[in-house]
Amino acid sequence: MDAIAVTRDDRTPRVVDVPRPDPGPGEALVRTLRVGVDGTDHEVIAGDHGGFPEGDDHLVLGHEAVGVVEDPNGTVLNAGQVVAPTVRRPPDGNNEYFRRGEPDMAPGGEYVERGIDGAHGFMAEYFTSSADHLVSVPDALADLGFLVEPASITEKALELAYAARSSFDWTPDAALVLGNGSLGLLTLAMLDARDDFESLYCLGRRDRPDPTIDVVDRLGATYVDSRETPVPDVPAVHEPVDFVYEATGHAKHAFETIEALAPNGVGALLGVPEAGWEFEVAGSDLHREFVLENKALVGSVNSNVDHFEGAVDALQALPGWVFDDLVTGVYELEAFRRAFDDDETTIKTAVQFDTQ
Amino acid sequence: MDAIAVTRDDRTPRVVDVPRPDPGPGEALVRTLRVGVDGTDHEVIAGDHGGFPEGDDHLVLGHEAVGVVEDPNGTVLNAGQVVAPTVRRPPDGNNEYFRRGEPDMAPGGEYVERGIDGAHGFMAEYFTSSADHLVSVPDALADLGFLVEPASITEKALELAYAARSSFDWTPDAALVLGNGSLGLLTLAMLDARDDFESLYCLGRRDRPDPTIDVVDRLGATYVDSRETPVPDVPAVHEPVDFVYEATGHAKHAFETIEALAPNGVGALLGVPEAGWEFEVAGSDLHREFVLENKALVGSVNSNVDHFEGAVDALQALPGWVFDDLVTGVYELEAFRRAFDDDETTIKTAVQFDTQ
Repeated sequence: MDAIAVTRDDRTPRVVDVPRPDPGPGEALVRTLRVGVDGTDHEVIAGDHGGFPEGDDHLVLGHEAVGVVEDPNGTVLNAGQVVAPTVRRPPDGNNEYFRRGEPDMAPGGEYVERGIDGAHGFMAEYFTSSADHLVSVPDALADLGFLVEPASITEKALELAYAARSSFDWTPDAALVLGNGSLGLLTLAMLDARDDFESLYCLGRRDRPDPTIDVVDRLGATYVDSRETPVPDVPAVHEPVDFVYEATGHAKHAFETIEALAPNGVGALLGVPEAGWEFEVAGSDLHREFVLENKALVGSVNSNVDHFEGAVDALQALPGWVFDDLVTGVYELEAFRRAFDDDETTIKTAVQFDTQ
Repeated sequence: MDAIAVTRDDRTPRVVDVPRPDPGPGEALVRTLRVGVDGTDHEVIAGDHGGFPEGDDHLVLGHEAVGVVEDPNGTVLNAGQVVAPTVRRPPDGNNEYFRRGEPDMAPGGEYVERGIDGAHGFMAEYFTSSADHLVSVPDALADLGFLVEPASITEKALELAYAARSSFDWTPDAALVLGNGSLGLLTLAMLDARDDFESLYCLGRRDRPDPTIDVVDRLGATYVDSRETPVPDVPAVHEPVDFVYEATGHAKHAFETIEALAPNGVGALLGVPEAGWEFEVAGSDLHREFVLENKALVGSVNSNVDHFEGAVDALQALPGWVFDDLVTGVYELEAFRRAFDDDETTIKTAVQFDTQ
């Protein structure tokens, strides 16, 4: 069958021929519909993140997938059921994090990540997966099921952030999303739909006219151009925000988040910057403000089945135009390279392997 | 009556004669037993923190008090009942934070702090307080009731920290207290009594023999000399820790805490450094680690009635020797100055105004 992979000696994604996998005990065989592309894929392709499966010279790409159960293989799943696979798998045998349904909290060494690190991804005509890691997606969402994984990332970050404020009466009013990439915009739409926030801001560094800024506008949020209004100036120029969602991977934003927050606010950090950048911070001012105003920061990576299920609900609550605007391209296998193009007209792309 | 105060033109604490207060509606009159001294008092005395009550030329010191209800004045309290007062009061009229019992979460401008900022403290023969802000203390704890306020600070920080890890199955194993002052040592004893932690560490920068290190030893904790083992080296030299309690106010510790934490760990920051110190951090490495290992930081200041009640329970669970070792001096009014001495033999001191 066809799959999209990189090899150890050629990091350009290309179509390779690999055997159609056979489901093992507890696994189902899934016919792939669509697989999304995100920043992590670009990092994996560039060799900045992740790694090849042990002993293999290629890595099948893709971790944002939706497919149809082809062979339930005796699991609880039904043939024809639409499913989205989670990303982490136990490295060899099970471990406590997987047993309790929290692979997203497993430390390094206790997981591999399909399509990213140590395990083949979903960009293939078929894939197999333990039924435990396949989340049911309503038929109506089949075309957009590749957004369940990114939405689940936000579900987890929100869960951690709200938990961090759960010991007191926290009534957030304003939220700021750092980053107008596909994850930032999807999150902005999810925050808008939650109805928790009176005002929403999204920070980027682009000029109008721009399709991402159009989405910000259409959601009724305020676009913040970081070249004019750096993160620490957001409280003075706009208002202090109760929640910050950092999806830029720009390391200074992790620290500037503290300054953007209102008293009792929480920042969720999700970006993964390249290592090795040292810079100066107003260390004691940040420390003071953090303590005297009861602020909090949570780091968040990956997501589990519960977050996938929350993501399915969250996506169903979004208006249709959001998907029309966010998904700028879905490409058949023959044109798959366009899904990896990343220019200023691209927001979210996917490769289509089959239709339902 | 006698009170210990500083004045706008002389910041040396001294005994002043002030009128015995009359309780207003909803207030009780309390006869003061003992009032503790901590680092905040030294900052207030130095003029680095807090301020005088509006229109007054003096500030009665003291925010860690225990006393006996002298006149319940129609409140729910009983004459003779031992009580500890909380610290924050509404500035003028009530506000939402006080109404819902969370003055500790009020932002600047929404509170005054007795003995610290804008309101007289408890270092006087009598004080009045709204009955809502007086927490019952068992008679057996009357002598040590001045430790309820500092213990409540830790109760709040623990509440915030545990809340931040409440969305998943968090089973902490190792804890590190940064700072071997009285709050650090009291916290170490409280952590020991909670039985949540297999191993406890306490970081300081003193040579043996030292009375604070003796307490660390006696609690079965490991003393970490920061001159030999800086905070970021704790994981390599000892082990990564699931919980860090920062009670030094040393701004670099706020950032180094991230490096000391194990995956999924949480750091509670409580120290309040002087403003204006800028320094370099390994910004992108900290950001990466924070995200990829799901770490969290919470800032924590002040405490509310619930935390005081938790503190009463927590203190009752401590072995008697902890108090004998921690409380290095209780001084009558004639010798009150010794309570403000701060040398290497001093851990915790209090001024005694009366006995039960």
